[in-house]
Amino acid sequence: MIPTIDTIEDVKRAHTEAPIHALIERRWSPRSFADTPVSDADLKSIFTAAGWAASSQNEQPWRYLVGRKGDETYKKLFDSLLPGNQLWAGTAPVLYATLVKKTFAANGKPNGSALHDTGASDATLSLQARAFDLHTHGMAGVDKDLLRAFFGIPGDFDVVAVWALGYLGDPHAVPDKYKQAELDPRTRKPLSEYVFASWEQGAL
Amino acid sequence: MIPTIDTIEDVKRAHTEAPIHALIERRWSPRSFADTPVSDADLKSIFTAAGWAASSQNEQPWRYLVGRKGDETYKKLFDSLLPGNQLWAGTAPVLYATLVKKTFAANGKPNGSALHDTGASDATLSLQARAFDLHTHGMAGVDKDLLRAFFGIPGDFDVVAVWALGYLGDPHAVPDKYKQAELDPRTRKPLSEYVFASWEQGAL
Repeated sequence: MIPTIDTIEDVKRAHTEAPIHALIERRWSPRSFADTPVSDADLKSIFTAAGWAASSQNEQPWRYLVGRKGDETYKKLFDSLLPGNQLWAGTAPVLYATLVKKTFAANGKPNGSALHDTGASDATLSLQARAFDLHTHGMAGVDKDLLRAFFGIPGDFDVVAVWALGYLGDPHAVPDKYKQAELDPRTRKPLSEYVFASWEQGAL
Repeated sequence: MIPTIDTIEDVKRAHTEAPIHALIERRWSPRSFADTPVSDADLKSIFTAAGWAASSQNEQPWRYLVGRKGDETYKKLFDSLLPGNQLWAGTAPVLYATLVKKTFAANGKPNGSALHDTGASDATLSLQARAFDLHTHGMAGVDKDLLRAFFGIPGDFDVVAVWALGYLGDPHAVPDKYKQAELDPRTRKPLSEYVFASWEQGAL
């Protein structure tokens, strides 16, 4: 049966042997977003939640540039996307970029955990978004030099990704190129391929 | 008033202006863990949840080595910790290491998102742990070469961190050096310092 917007949530949720929390189970990365705007209050909660992720030395190396459809920031973020992502990301009412500070503020030394901790912030953000029935989709396919130039981002920061955020749209509305991925169930490795007691040996 | 194990949860939760989800609000990194063991079922759910984080090209670059107090893996992970972390991490019933595959499995090319995506996996793991009333504490203070040698980790993987996992212990039981941090409220930057519409300009 071909999923519709009414049944896609059940197709896309994580079907797991061991139970996991609903926020995690129901987080995925759609390419179709509804027109519905996102409230200021929800955005404030979402970016607040991101900021409470764990980070080495409590450095909080993450930074966000947030645009709403129609404003200048959104336009620059959209224009920074590679062509494949421009095919669909413009349906989202919000685009945001994740940036990372590569050095510790206190002493300027390299922060080897910065990118990892920014991933933690991004994941926390996405799960908080699900608590408001919102979805996120991260894109590494970005012209990072162009984005850096657009916003005048200093050299001790890296551009990580641009994300689409909004309410779920009709999965059949995505461009043909992406339709199958939009309708197919998600897949993950079994535990035995990434959890070990000793390297390359038995799992939990 | 000095917090006790009965009141510490309220001291440590994120006190935010905008409401955030309870799992996120109540995640922090304690240094005191109770003796209580963690069930196999909970561990299975926790590592399953980690695996459902988002990753570039669905590469799932994260790997975990998991030890329980008394087994060989735990001993090796503990012995890999820097001395400051050894002062307290041995109270945890579970230690696990996060590793990251630096290249794409499909073509061997460098995966620039690998560390970021592994941070997403680690954060998801920590939030799933909170759903079971468990806590995690990540440690970058690890002798990574020693850990690599202990487990024979190949060169296309990096050691990211070692984590303590367990139920909360008495916060007054931590070594003096860490007691203040264990009892103090947590702090984060205000939104205006990490969320922008244009660089170094106004926040949401």
